[in-house]
Amino acid sequence: MPIDTISWQGDHVRMIDQTRLPGERVDIEIRTVPEMVEAIRTLRIRGAPAIGIAAAMGLVAALRPHLDEEDGFRARLEEYAAELAAARPTAVNLSWAVERMKEVARRHRDMAAAALWERLEQEALAIFEEDQRMCRRIGEAARGVIRDRAGILTHCNAGGLATSGYGTALACAYVAHEDGKRVRVFADETRPLMQGSRLTAWELMESGVDVTLICDDMTAATMAKGEIDLVIVGADRIAANGDTANKIGTYGVAILAREHGIPFYVAAPRTTFDFSLPDGSRIPIEERDPAEITHGFGAATAPAGVKVYSPAFDVTPARYVTGFLTDAGLLEPPYEDSLQILREPAGT
Amino acid sequence: MPIDTISWQGDHVRMIDQTRLPGERVDIEIRTVPEMVEAIRTLRIRGAPAIGIAAAMGLVAALRPHLDEEDGFRARLEEYAAELAAARPTAVNLSWAVERMKEVARRHRDMAAAALWERLEQEALAIFEEDQRMCRRIGEAARGVIRDRAGILTHCNAGGLATSGYGTALACAYVAHEDGKRVRVFADETRPLMQGSRLTAWELMESGVDVTLICDDMTAATMAKGEIDLVIVGADRIAANGDTANKIGTYGVAILAREHGIPFYVAAPRTTFDFSLPDGSRIPIEERDPAEITHGFGAATAPAGVKVYSPAFDVTPARYVTGFLTDAGLLEPPYEDSLQILREPAGT
Repeated sequence: MPIDTISWQGDHVRMIDQTRLPGERVDIEIRTVPEMVEAIRTLRIRGAPAIGIAAAMGLVAALRPHLDEEDGFRARLEEYAAELAAARPTAVNLSWAVERMKEVARRHRDMAAAALWERLEQEALAIFEEDQRMCRRIGEAARGVIRDRAGILTHCNAGGLATSGYGTALACAYVAHEDGKRVRVFADETRPLMQGSRLTAWELMESGVDVTLICDDMTAATMAKGEIDLVIVGADRIAANGDTANKIGTYGVAILAREHGIPFYVAAPRTTFDFSLPDGSRIPIEERDPAEITHGFGAATAPAGVKVYSPAFDVTPARYVTGFLTDAGLLEPPYEDSLQILREPAGT
Repeated sequence: MPIDTISWQGDHVRMIDQTRLPGERVDIEIRTVPEMVEAIRTLRIRGAPAIGIAAAMGLVAALRPHLDEEDGFRARLEEYAAELAAARPTAVNLSWAVERMKEVARRHRDMAAAALWERLEQEALAIFEEDQRMCRRIGEAARGVIRDRAGILTHCNAGGLATSGYGTALACAYVAHEDGKRVRVFADETRPLMQGSRLTAWELMESGVDVTLICDDMTAATMAKGEIDLVIVGADRIAANGDTANKIGTYGVAILAREHGIPFYVAAPRTTFDFSLPDGSRIPIEERDPAEITHGFGAATAPAGVKVYSPAFDVTPARYVTGFLTDAGLLEPPYEDSLQILREPAGT
């Protein structure tokens, strides 16, 4: 596992505080729902799979002091689950993980609180371990599309820090690196929160993978220079037709890739696909605090009071996606057919 | 004049120190070539027309203490001119302005130093005043393409701060604003040096023009949302066929504009056109210090020692350019024909 992003400690959650990277690695301990909601909202932990795991583990940690509240335990579970699910609106894994925890409670309707809590703990750990297996498989799915010395462009951080440790987009680079391929990763900085420079560059350097940092407005020039052989990005939510919500900027990268004849892949586990949405037009897009743009680096980089538009995500229409790298392998168009395999439960 | 970027003070140059914006407006005085070269290199003054004016005025200021060196005056002029011309490699206006000053000396082969210096001072002021007229005409050239309530996207700062005060791309917005059109400008932040947020947003707010700041990776989503009716950018050097070198990121914006069916205009005075270059492949592209990306605004935003690729400019092929907004009006394809008018001297 390249990065130990998050782990369960018996009565609390331990996580790398990603807002402190790349300056220093600081681990934090989470025991309550408000702590976890704050950590998710302020991006101490981020990335769709990782916040799903965090919400599940956070729910277990928060319920632990209430094992003797036989009457109120399930109501508290519902209340905590709702608060966690609302922490961020776009990533499907968050509501998916919380829903899965609630389903455990429904399945064990008459179970005592302490016993139910143990089942919930097992479920959270199962979500964590399934993510590890799925990420590894995503990396393996890319073996056929990454050649030796390939230049891979990625946007934001769909890396170990965004998951249980292997990543989705970066799992492809990690598996290629393990296979002895000398891949060169180009990391878009990813304004405003700089997940590309703070997180992707950090974890690739930690793992010994060759990485070059560029600003978001250098992507087209880097492609024109012939440095990029393929793009691999992660996803926050993918509709049934393949339309993909991901970090703001992804849609632009997809257009630039197509203009340069460069394949554009989306790497994601099946949990990121939302078959209840026919297409991307209904994916909710969160807008974020203007101060992230105007005061992102400490000093003000914009005039006081300037108007700002700051969507956190964009939607890349499926027609720009060369293929999906998933735990069920590489899935290519037509997506109406190929994505169907993801509706089945994951194997083990 | 919206912004008093630079002025001649009889024996020195006064300029707004643009590295201090948007936090505070600080004016600096320049008297020597090393001071001016430093100011140009560190972007205290930037923008192709403005650095042409700055180099011409800087040359006059630096020569003033040497009026009694009858023998060495012309050799010193040559030496200073060469140092100023080498301050930045990409912008054609710099070498053009310096060449024009040298031509004055050649024209007055036998003139005494003090008299020649006065001719040089007149020439520097003529360059300044011609820029003012050209910028205003560029703004007027856009009258036919900007409707009321138009959303205009711009990248970097081709504004008053990049010229003698009116700007090139922003001249179009200023003239539209003066004409009573309620234009809405969207300013790309423009990493790494944030000329969009620090300078474009600042001068538009100062001038009462509606402006919204976005990050560079939000451009595609803002276009998809329908906010942008046209793009207007400046240029650092334009080849004979219309290929355009401008701030890094411009090429990507041009591709995104075309994909969304949005017209893409380049605003520039005739001095930015370099007919000695048949196309953009021979335009030299400056690479800048990685620290501008990794430590741009105080704190480190990338891991120590990370590899960086940082081109300062890119080249947008002419086929992406809907038209050139120039002091000779709007010039449309085929550029082999339409740009010829710029080879004639500017009228007054």
